[in-house]
Formats: sequence, C-alpha cells, structure tokens
Amino acid sequence: MKAGHIEYLVTNLREAKRFYVDTLGFVLTSSDRGHLYLRGMEDRHHHSLVLTEAGAPGVAHFAFKVASEEDLPVLAKLLKARGCKTEWEDAGSEEGIGKSLRAQDPFGFPVEFYCKAEKEDWMLQRFDRYKGAAVLRLDHFNLFVPDASAAYDWYVDDLGFGCTETTETEGKDPKLWAAWLRRKHTCHDVALTTGKGPRVHHAGFTVPDRGSVMDCADVLAASGYLDRMERGPGRHGVSNAFFLYLRDPDGNRFELYTGDYLSADPDWVPIRWKLNDPQRQTFWGAPTPASWFNEAMMVKSLKSGGFMRLRLPAIVDRPNYLLPGGRATK
Amino acid sequence: MKAGHIEYLVTNLREAKRFYVDTLGFVLTSSDRGHLYLRGMEDRHHHSLVLTEAGAPGVAHFAFKVASEEDLPVLAKLLKARGCKTEWEDAGSEEGIGKSLRAQDPFGFPVEFYCKAEKEDWMLQRFDRYKGAAVLRLDHFNLFVPDASAAYDWYVDDLGFGCTETTETEGKDPKLWAAWLRRKHTCHDVALTTGKGPRVHHAGFTVPDRGSVMDCADVLAASGYLDRMERGPGRHGVSNAFFLYLRDPDGNRFELYTGDYLSADPDWVPIRWKLNDPQRQTFWGAPTPASWFNEAMMVKSLKSGGFMRLRLPAIVDRPNYLLPGGRATK
Amino acid sequence: MKAGHIEYLVTNLREAKRFYVDTLGFVLTSSDRGHLYLRGMEDRHHHSLVLTEAGAPGVAHFAFKVASEEDLPVLAKLLKARGCKTEWEDAGSEEGIGKSLRAQDPFGFPVEFYCKAEKEDWMLQRFDRYKGAAVLRLDHFNLFVPDASAAYDWYVDDLGFGCTETTETEGKDPKLWAAWLRRKHTCHDVALTTGKGPRVHHAGFTVPDRGSVMDCADVLAASGYLDRMERGPGRHGVSNAFFLYLRDPDGNRFELYTGDYLSADPDWVPIRWKLNDPQRQTFWGAPTPASWFNEAMMVKSLKSGGFMRLRLPAIVDRPNYLLPGGRATK
Amino acid sequence: MKAGHIEYLVTNLREAKRFYVDTLGFVLTSSDRGHLYLRGMEDRHHHSLVLTEAGAPGVAHFAFKVASEEDLPVLAKLLKARGCKTEWEDAGSEEGIGKSLRAQDPFGFPVEFYCKAEKEDWMLQRFDRYKGAAVLRLDHFNLFVPDASAAYDWYVDDLGFGCTETTETEGKDPKLWAAWLRRKHTCHDVALTTGKGPRVHHAGFTVPDRGSVMDCADVLAASGYLDRMERGPGRHGVSNAFFLYLRDPDGNRFELYTGDYLSADPDWVPIRWKLNDPQRQTFWGAPTPASWFNEAMMVKSLKSGGFMRLRLPAIVDRPNYLLPGGRATK
Repeated sequence: MKAGHIEYLVTNLREAKRFYVDTLGFVLTSSDRGHLYLRGMEDRHHHSLVLTEAGAPGVAHFAFKVASEEDLPVLAKLLKARGCKTEWEDAGSEEGIGKSLRAQDPFGFPVEFYCKAEKEDWMLQRFDRYKGAAVLRLDHFNLFVPDASAAYDWYVDDLGFGCTETTETEGKDPKLWAAWLRRKHTCHDVALTTGKGPRVHHAGFTVPDRGSVMDCADVLAASGYLDRMERGPGRHGVSNAFFLYLRDPDGNRFELYTGDYLSADPDWVPIRWKLNDPQRQTFWGAPTPASWFNEAMMVKSLKSGGFMRLRLPAIVDRPNYLLPGGRATK
Repeated sequence: MKAGHIEYLVTNLREAKRFYVDTLGFVLTSSDRGHLYLRGMEDRHHHSLVLTEAGAPGVAHFAFKVASEEDLPVLAKLLKARGCKTEWEDAGSEEGIGKSLRAQDPFGFPVEFYCKAEKEDWMLQRFDRYKGAAVLRLDHFNLFVPDASAAYDWYVDDLGFGCTETTETEGKDPKLWAAWLRRKHTCHDVALTTGKGPRVHHAGFTVPDRGSVMDCADVLAASGYLDRMERGPGRHGVSNAFFLYLRDPDGNRFELYTGDYLSADPDWVPIRWKLNDPQRQTFWGAPTPASWFNEAMMVKSLKSGGFMRLRLPAIVDRPNYLLPGGRATK
Repeated sequence: MKAGHIEYLVTNLREAKRFYVDTLGFVLTSSDRGHLYLRGMEDRHHHSLVLTEAGAPGVAHFAFKVASEEDLPVLAKLLKARGCKTEWEDAGSEEGIGKSLRAQDPFGFPVEFYCKAEKEDWMLQRFDRYKGAAVLRLDHFNLFVPDASAAYDWYVDDLGFGCTETTETEGKDPKLWAAWLRRKHTCHDVALTTGKGPRVHHAGFTVPDRGSVMDCADVLAASGYLDRMERGPGRHGVSNAFFLYLRDPDGNRFELYTGDYLSADPDWVPIRWKLNDPQRQTFWGAPTPASWFNEAMMVKSLKSGGFMRLRLPAIVDRPNYLLPGGRATK
Repeated sequence: MKAGHIEYLVTNLREAKRFYVDTLGFVLTSSDRGHLYLRGMEDRHHHSLVLTEAGAPGVAHFAFKVASEEDLPVLAKLLKARGCKTEWEDAGSEEGIGKSLRAQDPFGFPVEFYCKAEKEDWMLQRFDRYKGAAVLRLDHFNLFVPDASAAYDWYVDDLGFGCTETTETEGKDPKLWAAWLRRKHTCHDVALTTGKGPRVHHAGFTVPDRGSVMDCADVLAASGYLDRMERGPGRHGVSNAFFLYLRDPDGNRFELYTGDYLSADPDWVPIRWKLNDPQRQTFWGAPTPASWFNEAMMVKSLKSGGFMRLRLPAIVDRPNYLLPGGRATK
C-alpha cells in the first residue's frame, strides 16, 4: 500500500536525538538503549523512522505496509521464486510492528513487508508541538540500482506499483535511467536511479509547505547544523516537489519534501524526461553538489550482518553533470 | 477511484467566464455556445468542472471516475437493485468523456460514473499561467442528505468508500450527523451532512497552499468580487484543511481547499467529532455565516429536467450554532 | 523617533507568562516579583512590552523613543504649554530605560518620552528560538480619543508626526474620524480613532509574514487559547497589513501585524478612506465582532493611580457597522 | 531621504519589456522610443527604474530623493568641494522628475539628487494586477568601490547616512571591506563593497515575502528565463533578507529582496561581520557562483558619455571564496 518505515544506523544516539528530535521536531514515540522510534505529526502508527546505534552509518532495512495479512505469503512466494531468502518476524520483534516478512530482495535491498502497526496519537492538529521541519509523514525511498530496468520490472510487474515519471538516456536508443513508482496516490513510494548499488540515496519525508522548508533551513543554520544542508531549498522538475536535502550527523541523507501531486488516475501516463534536461533535477536550474550524485547509504546484508557489496551500473552513459564541465559544484 | 467532475448551471456564461477563468484562473479546455469545460493546473484530463448556461443555478450532475470499464455494469446492477433508473451515455455525448453510466442515485442525486476521458496537457509546471486561485484539481463533493446513515451505508458498503472522519450528535445515544468518505488517498471524495436534501453544498478544489488562498482573497477583493467570499480564509477542524468558500455570480458555492492529509492506510480508524465541538467547523473558532449552514445547490432530476424536490432531515437535533445565540453570524 | 514600549497591567503574572512567553514566544529579557520585561526577536533594547501585576487590566503607560536627550526638555515645554503636568524619571527607575519624561498628555494618556535604553542581544537570526507568533518588534499604538481632530493636531503640528492615512465621516461635510500617524518610515506609530476615551484600543506587534500569523492562530487554537483570538486573520484596507487581534488572559488587546508599506517620502499624500467603505476595515469584507469596536483598555492616571475617566466622542455619527443591521457579529 | 530610482541601459527595449513588464510584473508608467519608465506596486511616483536603449548594457545613473528643494544646493556645494563637476537638470528633462542635480561623485558614480517626482496611482491593493515577482519598490543600490573606507566617509560624514552593518577583513588589523548604509529606516539605501570600481553590482527591489520570491523563480523557469537566475533563492546573513539575484536579457543584475528589518533607532550600533564568516553571504551556507563576485555593471561618464574607467581595489586581501578551493561554484 505504501512506504511504511525505514531504519537508519547512527553512531551516536544522543547526537541523533539532538538532531532529529530536538532540532527537526520528529515525534519520539519511544526509545530503548539502542533505538529511537520516531514518527511525523501526521503518522498514526508507532514509527516511520527507526534510529539504531551501530558502528557505521547506513540503512538496516526499509519496509512497505501491505493492505492485508494475506498479502504476506503471496509476497514470500514471489521472493522465493526469485531466489531470495525470506524470514518471518513475530509481531513485536521490531517494536510496534506486527508479524512481518523480511528478505534481501532481488537487487540486494533489505526489505520488510508488514500489515499491522501499533496505533499512536495523531499530532496533526497539535500545532503547539510543531517545530523545526514539522515533518508530517514518510513519503518515499530513493534507491541506487545498477540495472534500473530490471528493478522497474520487479516493482511494476511483480509488486504492482504504478509508474508516474521516468528519465531516459539521451540518444537514438534511449534506455531507462530512473523511474518514480507508487502504490499510494502520490508521485512515488520508491524511486529507482541508475548507480552503484544496492544503496539507498535517501528517504523522503513530507512537510506542510514551502514555508516549512525555509523555516527549517533557518533553524538548522541557527543551530550549528549549517553543513548538514546538502542541497536546496529548490524545486524539482521530476515530482514538482519543493525540497531540501539533509545529512544527519553521521551523513545519512534524507529529504524534506512538499508539493508533489495526486496520481489516483489508473490511466496515468508516465511523464518522460531526458537525462540532460536542465530542469529535470532542479526546475530552477541551480547546480547540485557532486556529493549528492555520488554518495549514498550502504545497506545491510541480512545474512552476514555486514553491508552488501556494490555492483557497477549496467548502463555506461553518465549524465552531463557528472562529466568534467558539468553543473555539479565541488 | 475518485471524484471526477461536476456540472454547475449558470445563468450567464460570459459572467461565469470572467469569474472562473479570467479571475480565478481555471484552465479553459474548450467551450461551445452553452458550455465552458474547465480544468485545474494539475488535471491531465478534459475537465473537472463544466459550466452550463441555464435558467437557474444548481448542479446538473456530478461524476466519479472508476478504475476500469468493467466496473460500470457492476455499478448499473447495484443501482438497479436499489430501484434507480440508469442510462448509458455514449462516449462524447458529454464532451471529452467516454462511455458513461448516469442515474438518479438512491438519495436523489444525479450521478455519473465513467472510466475514460480525453487527455489534456499538464499545466502543473506552467507557472507562467498560474493566476487567481491557482486551482490544481477537483478534490471532493459535499452533499446535504436527509438521512446521513443511509447515505453512508450506500457509499461505504455498496460503493466501497473508506471513512476518514465522522461527526455525531451530542447526548447519550449519538447518531451519525456527517461523514467524510474517500476513494483516493485524501481526506475525502464525498462528504455527507445531515440537511434538507438532495442538495450539493459545495465542490472542493485543491489549491497549492495557504498563500494561494490568501492571494486569491486579495485578488477577489480587488476585482469587485468582495461579496463572493462567503466564509474564510480559515482552518477546518475536520480534514485539517485551510479553506475559503466562494459563491459564483449565480450563487453556486465552491471551496478552495488545501492542506488535508493522506489516508492510504487500509486500517485507518475514523476521527470522531461531536457536533458542537467549537473547533470542528473552524479550528480557530471564528463564526460562520448562517447562509453557509442553510443554503445549498439544488440538483437536477434526470427524468423531469427540473430540480429534485427536497426532503427534511430524519434527525431533528440541530447544532447549537443554528439555534438562537449560536455562533453563526447574520 | 518611534513607538518605543508599552506597559500592560495583568492580574496574574504566571498566567501572563504562559501566554506571552511560553505560547507566543516573546523574549523574556528580565523579570522581578511584579514585572515581566519582554522584547521581540528584532528588538535590540531592553523591552518593548512590560507586564505589570495589578488588580485590574489596562495600560499603565506607553512610550515614544526620541532621537536625542535634547529633545526631552523641548517636549516638557510643549506639554507644560498645554497645561499637562510632567515628571522626570531617573535612568533605571523603569528597568532598562534611561532618563525619561512622563506626563498625562492633553488627551489624558499616560505617555513617556525617553532616549536611551539598555542594549540587548539581537535574536533576529536565532531562528532556533522562534516560536508561536515570532514577534519581531513593537509597531504602533492605537488610541480611542473623543476628538480625533484635536489629537491629530497635537501629534502632527506639535510632535511632528507625518500622516499616512485618514478616515472621514460620510456626507457633505466630512470630518476626521481616524488618522494613522508615523515618525518611523512605516504606516504608523500611533493611530487615532474617534471613540470614548482616553483608552488604548491595542498595541500592534510586527511578525515576519502572513504564514507567521496563520501559524500563530494554529498554535493558539491547539493551546487552549481559542477564545483569545478576537478578530482575523485577515487583511486591513487601511495600512494594507495582514492582522490577527488577540486578547490576553486579562482581556488586554494587541495585534499581530505584518505587510504594511514604507512611508519614507516626505511628500507623502495621505490615503483617504470613507467611514463606511466596506474594504476599509477588512479588505476581504469579513464581519468584525462588536467587542472589537466597543471594548478598549483603560489608562492610568499618573496623579491618582486609578484609571482616567472617559469622555464621549465629539462626533455623533456612527459607522454603519455599529448600527442595527450592520456587519458586526454578536 | 532614500534611494529614488536607477537607469539601466539595455540593447533591446522589446526584449526588456517582455522580461521586466510581461514576466516580472513591473508597472509600466510610460514609454517612448528609447525608454521604459517602470515602478513597483507600492511606488506612488513616476518611476523607480528607467530602461534606456543603448549599444551596451550598464548603468546610466542612479538617484537619491532628498527631503526638500533646499537640500540640493547644499549637496552641490559638497560635491564641488570634492572637485566633482555638477549639472542642474530642469524639471522634466528626465520624464516625471523635478529639478535635479547630477554629478560624477568622488568615486566616479553618475549620481542624481532630486526632490520632486510626478505622482502616480498606488497599485499596492490592486492585487488583480500582481504578477511575476510582484515588485513593491526600489530598496537599495549595491556598489563596487576600490576604497570602501573613503566611500563610507563620503556617505556617512558628508551625506549623513547611518551605518547598519559592516564587514571587515580577517586578521589582527581589520579593515573595512563592505558597509550597509541607510537614510530610510531599513537595512540600507546603499551598500559599498571593495572591488574594481566604480561599478554597480545590483539594485535591490522589495517583494512582499518569501513566497513571492519562490513564485517568481517558478515563473521565470516556466518562461524560458532559467539562465537569468544567477543566485538564490536564499537568505542573507547580512541584512537577514531573503533574496534572488537575476540578470536581465542584457546581463544587468538586480535583486528581489524581502524580510530585512527596521533601523529607526538613532543609537543603532552596526552589526559587524568578518569577511570569511560562512553565514555572512548566505545564511544557509549554499555556494555562490563566481560570476556573482566578479561581474558588475559599468557606469556612465557624464562627461564623455562612455563608461568610467575602472580602478583596482586598495585592499589586496581577498575573501577565501575567491581563492582556489573556495566555495564559489564554476
């Protein structure tokens, strides 16, 4: 049904709390020695972000919420058919989450599917508690995959996602470079981009409006987090969203995101962009730092407990902005 | 799948064009002697609002878009089972709309179901064309029904809508006074309120943010449409949306609407309000004009071509604000 | 040079702190048993608002800051020439304020003139400390005077204020009903309105933008202060400002104010409004509660320590909205 | 009293009209074969920006408005004492402007002083006419001068400007690198920056709020003017203003500017910044394109009719961001 939650690894839980809770205003549902369970003002369930203390930053897993318990065995079968090892987790083995299915998906991502989560108070109208970024909810995951076409087929054909926008390589024989895919009626729940993978580029969290993004930039700049703002504020061409990309104290990246569109139409025809359209990445044409293109979060191997090894992209074309003379800044 | 379009009756198409197109900035897809076909900046189909010249204002019909052609005969069967006369319309008999099913629904509303509509250019990023209210898309219909519980059952049990919020009467034996029901993942596609019916209270159109609502109020006030602003701007308790209610030159009502929430969760538990909660209607507690409570748009009878006769509500309780001493303004 | 500060009387300093500091976000410079000294984020001096515990609400005094110490004896002479008793206060007798001149002005207002105030940190870029209304600075005082023309002459001819806008009574022989007068380059430092006086209708405090006003309304509504919002948010015709009028827990009124204009031109020609222009008070035409027109804060007598007795207005014309059938709400 | 107007040279008046009037929404007061006279929504006088067709871009002159006619001969005397040739212009020799004094000032800038200008309609509340950037008024001139200290003395000691903020070089013996000087009660009417001069870096125009800046960026991006946005949107450290820098079709630079502060206090103590404070230029720390630091507009010589020759700065220190490895983007 939708992107449900994500687990980030942080090296210092205290520092992470100061950043995510005290400064950005995520709601702290609960915590224990090794974890913070966070949600947005609009979230009515236990958490949409888990911070887990670990030796190195990265992503432990991300999770999709499904419509009913009966979808879980169907998904297990699909994963096994692709040779993926699956595991069943009992309700509560992840705090606040019901029975769930975990797997390393065909592209190496540690993914979880679940149906139930503990209910929590709705903070949407507790405006007295809004602060920092006033994060409302988790919106999407953005992934680097070596073969975007193959990942597209998995999400669209096997998992039943719809496609709202695509980016194709330049030239006579265009190939799929990136895709924005959705279950809920927004621009996306997951975005796939060609790159060294499996890595998670960022998770996107929805904020109320452009003013919230601006206010958050002001607050971060006044709180000693100047260098935690990596890119933006600005408007995306793809998704039409207004954005600000942040790096947490460990370098994990996430996006404050607002102002995309509704995609409820079943006959939605994907919007198609060319890779080097200057307005695709940034509708206003501002340059993007090279770190944004090159860096991303490593993901956990369920088997080894270490990080998954990376593979190089199948497509060798690179967008102009990554070539010498491109618009990326140093 | 979602609220698709609505047809308003206006007595002067020229005046209506000055108001809806020149001032508020609806996109004019096409027009003929008797009609204007309008859409919002985000709409990718032919129209979400039709203005039809007629002798008196009102609503000729409203329409829901369905997921596939195969849903139409199922709906026809459902309607017939409730004793409703149905009609099939060929593609194009309503300009821009494919084959459709029309009926007077069990509560007397002239409703249409359709699957296909002609594609139109996406204006979402044509910011050079934004003006007035910068309307993005149709969001919902708000209906007065004498028996809210019966209408709730039809929409939820027969048509498969989800319920996001309800209002109940005060007292020991609370009854359903109003309900917000959705197909798409927002607060609602249709709202039902106890009142003399069948009447349409308003259609809601989404605008980008609170600033758009404010800007539109400024533009209307500077364009000689001061008395066309009936209520707002303000924030609703129900839906959390920021709103401004307008009456067109003929008195037809619609809402500029922004900032509700996503309701993609299949296990959504409805938010419950009591009828006399002062923050239900207006989160900031401002008084609402009596016209807003009492007036609504008559709806067409498909059979007679005239307006449907009204029935009084089944519940006799009235909210405090409609009693002497209530908060409604003169 | 400008409106400098104002002293409100409150019956419960604790309650006042919860409202002004904890909820609205005024900066607390210092406090003692009987006073809170508050300033806005932009204020670089000790205070622009003093809250003093007393048996009844009202205004103890308001103060103008002058350009140099040498202006003070000139003002003393002017006041004496009008028969007003003046008093010299030593530096520090009002905490944070230098040597000052106090008087009951010719219209009965307890007014202070001073040149020096203690410097305080600038909080303008401490965005991590912004909350509630994010008040930036004191902008103006709004006064009820029985004879607006006489008060106008005092401020313009004797004190050298410029006039930016006026309201005149209807009819063939229009009289001055209200005036907006300024020393600093904004719409006003003081506004004079015909009414039972001397009373202070409100002090206006500047906030960053329309979004700040909306955010503050949301915060108040979520903090149990629903009934403290008396009027707005809306846009004024006069001043063009976006506003929200609040009553503190004791009923003292103040305005959150943003978006007026610069009036630096020495050849500024006053904007003239007629009393019953529907867009004068509220550019969007929304009704105003009767309390807003009728209620105001009593002012202290320096001599007796009690409140000044009120006189009725010289002009008997009343605006339509105060007559039966007018737009004021109950 | 304040920055009054500025004259830009453009090579194609038609193109300039499409940019300034049709896209950005400047109000066209009048035009003739060689000029467009423009003003903002808040301007009550004939123009604040003149566009003059010429062979090359640049600045023909900029002008300050003075409080009274009697100030003009005083200024003439001051200029002559500094060896500057002055000229008197009759009323109307510049359309819409009264009798004026022109001179090449001691630093080579073509400057004009005038007291009277023709009155024009106030468009502030004609919200139906707002478009593009919704420019309200001229705010300031920003100048490159080889010797900032000398220019500071001229403006502060001779012309009586107040200083609100300064930037000083790093090191033990800091020198004045830049200064923000004001007559009206805002952050500045003129800013002086060390650099090759005399050149005008930009003129700043006030817009209503942050939303107006964002909206304008969207409109420019949708109008084919993507490459006309040079820097921003963002927030300045100095002035606290929210900004967007634009280059017109000829490359002339101007700033959309909003959200500085009031500086009416005569005892204002200048805010002091160090040259390499990363939050001085951009409060959010985003990089600034090198063109913004290096390029500026040439100014006319009244004597030769050509451009003034440039001199190199007196201070050889350069800020870090202009050195290899600095934050300026390519």
